[in-house]
Amino acid sequence: MQRPVAEIFSQGDEIVTGEITDTNSAWLSRKLTALGFDVARHTAVGDRLEALVDLLREIAGRADLCICTGGLGPTCDDLTAEAVSQAFGPPLELDEDALAQVESYFTRLGRAMPDVNRKQALLPRGSERLDNLWGTAPGFALTAGRCRFVFMPGVPGEMKAMFRRWIEPDLHRRFRLCPARLVVLNTVGMGESSLQERLDRIALPPEVKLGFRAGGPENQVKLLFPANFSDTEINDIAKRAADAIGDAVFAIGGSGEAENDIASVVGRELAARGSTLHVAETLSGGKLANRCAGEPWFRGAVVIPDSAGLCRYFGVEPSDDLARAAAWIAPRLREQGADHALAQIAYYTRDKLHDETATIEVHFILAAPDGVWRQTRTIGGGSARKQSTATALSFDLLRRYFQKKPGLHAL
Amino acid sequence: MQRPVAEIFSQGDEIVTGEITDTNSAWLSRKLTALGFDVARHTAVGDRLEALVDLLREIAGRADLCICTGGLGPTCDDLTAEAVSQAFGPPLELDEDALAQVESYFTRLGRAMPDVNRKQALLPRGSERLDNLWGTAPGFALTAGRCRFVFMPGVPGEMKAMFRRWIEPDLHRRFRLCPARLVVLNTVGMGESSLQERLDRIALPPEVKLGFRAGGPENQVKLLFPANFSDTEINDIAKRAADAIGDAVFAIGGSGEAENDIASVVGRELAARGSTLHVAETLSGGKLANRCAGEPWFRGAVVIPDSAGLCRYFGVEPSDDLARAAAWIAPRLREQGADHALAQIAYYTRDKLHDETATIEVHFILAAPDGVWRQTRTIGGGSARKQSTATALSFDLLRRYFQKKPGLHAL
Repeated sequence: MQRPVAEIFSQGDEIVTGEITDTNSAWLSRKLTALGFDVARHTAVGDRLEALVDLLREIAGRADLCICTGGLGPTCDDLTAEAVSQAFGPPLELDEDALAQVESYFTRLGRAMPDVNRKQALLPRGSERLDNLWGTAPGFALTAGRCRFVFMPGVPGEMKAMFRRWIEPDLHRRFRLCPARLVVLNTVGMGESSLQERLDRIALPPEVKLGFRAGGPENQVKLLFPANFSDTEINDIAKRAADAIGDAVFAIGGSGEAENDIASVVGRELAARGSTLHVAETLSGGKLANRCAGEPWFRGAVVIPDSAGLCRYFGVEPSDDLARAAAWIAPRLREQGADHALAQIAYYTRDKLHDETATIEVHFILAAPDGVWRQTRTIGGGSARKQSTATALSFDLLRRYFQKKPGLHAL
Repeated sequence: MQRPVAEIFSQGDEIVTGEITDTNSAWLSRKLTALGFDVARHTAVGDRLEALVDLLREIAGRADLCICTGGLGPTCDDLTAEAVSQAFGPPLELDEDALAQVESYFTRLGRAMPDVNRKQALLPRGSERLDNLWGTAPGFALTAGRCRFVFMPGVPGEMKAMFRRWIEPDLHRRFRLCPARLVVLNTVGMGESSLQERLDRIALPPEVKLGFRAGGPENQVKLLFPANFSDTEINDIAKRAADAIGDAVFAIGGSGEAENDIASVVGRELAARGSTLHVAETLSGGKLANRCAGEPWFRGAVVIPDSAGLCRYFGVEPSDDLARAAAWIAPRLREQGADHALAQIAYYTRDKLHDETATIEVHFILAAPDGVWRQTRTIGGGSARKQSTATALSFDLLRRYFQKKPGLHAL
């Protein structure tokens, strides 16, 4: 069965001039792909009426569904409703219910509605209003050509809430959806070329589409199965692929919200065990704490900026050998009121952190109820890359500990 | 003078299925806009040859420049060179220099080149090779129709390095560029409607294009001036706009790499004063430490997960009144080996942190050489929004302290 074709369209000068990164398109694409749409294209254009009108007409001729975000705000550069009117004909009319909703939003904030916001209640005649219970701008939907158009505000929180509440149920009613099955093998610490070479050793059926998401410490191998493959066939093929890659695979999952990153996998394990975690991070520079914040098992973090800070905090010296340093650190880690405590021991200057060509050796130390464990890795790239890699490998130490994988050393 | 029209084109299933968020387009757009191009459109399509061929032909007919990223990797889903060949005619040929470069990349890593990487040295005949000194995939450039096409790998670090080294100088030679002048007023703590209403009170010349980048704790007001405006006119108009908004404006800047966020502005001030900073963060959950990591003035952070952790760390009680809590906290903050120390005092449960409808009161406390200062703010939104807002308002306390702005209370 042919999947219905969807497009994502984002409006705003702030996107085409690069002032902001469009994250809505990726979120919407994950949702639509999981529902069974074939997302064929993302397009962003600026706040120019003619460009908007042209694009809307293009899309009406080639897609079955178009989700549009942005351009519904109160200001002069918000042109979406006007563009829809010009592209497809219906004049704009004041929607009294929409006006009442915009007014009530300001009433709840204890303020009078500014006059400029009245514009947000002007909708194309005959369109269906999409109530925005989370902000000021109502959305709307209409059909033009072969294409169902849905218009939502660009503020991510409002857009997501509206999609879940109004759009997703409507799409199930309107389209015959039969999703292809995506299996994702999540790996950590192995590059794209190595993954491809290991997979070349097994014969995948030609109908199974192989893809990669590469570029960070975590790389994904994606296997897309047509709807006619059985669960047994899918599981067998996925297992063979995972075995070919080896223990770099830390999770096997489906499509959806990409929550099988190493942090989420380890976080679920900590929660399931009723364990708690304290971290003392160096190279990851607060990124590890930020990934833990808000989780029930998180008991706090110390963010240590450099070698001098590390020596001050733990009482170690860069000249200490690793075993000695770990012996100093382990009991101090245990004092933090958590049953698992993780530290990154690394000696480096700020210059080396920022130098894209310099690598830094990091000893990841885990003080766990049954002992102290270590994994040592060398980390390269710019400072942001070093932070991400150190964050992922911190969680990977916990993963290997929980799964009793090789590569761990007891201290 | 008409600006040359540019488009950005990103290739990859991982983009149209939402597996990754395309950040290259925003970066390239900022660069091209600053150079004087009119970036008219971003488009992303998946790894399908026909879609790529169609899109390349479309763009060749309507843009003067197209920067393309992605699809140059070694794997089966990397189709860009093949699509260029089909769209515009030149056959693919093995480029011996490109092959030698790919091989030498692997030699430097101490590995043999996998056979699959040989594909990366196949370039369209007559195109100009763009050496990739930072990874494996060489890029290439060619002209088709009215449009100059530049193809680069999608890995952000490689793409950026290649753009700076090869593309930017070439664009200056090929195009007569006369950039419009963008003035950005950076504000914190004021919403889009309020900004628009304050700006409505002054008369902007109709040729000046007004725009907003809204949605977070920091909102930008953008004034785009045609090339014929003088520096004096631009400065006068920008100053009138800033005065109309008031002390929510914390910086006035031009276009470029968006480094005038509140963290960068305050960071430069800390560096210029030779000051140092320690932070004890609660609501911002590691995001504040991450924004400080790698800066010369950063002396470390403690990330406290909730009220229980706050009470344990500082020895305060939720029942303590604020003055009493601050009196406890200030001397403890001062012990951290930095001349400025900042704490977020807030009492909340994890449920309240995640509840999008719940607000949390945060007392931002700054222990500075001349005393202790406080600003209290109420923060709402989901947990990520609360983290971002608490991070921005932490820096805003420092900004108001440095600039001696109203809204600060001495303790």
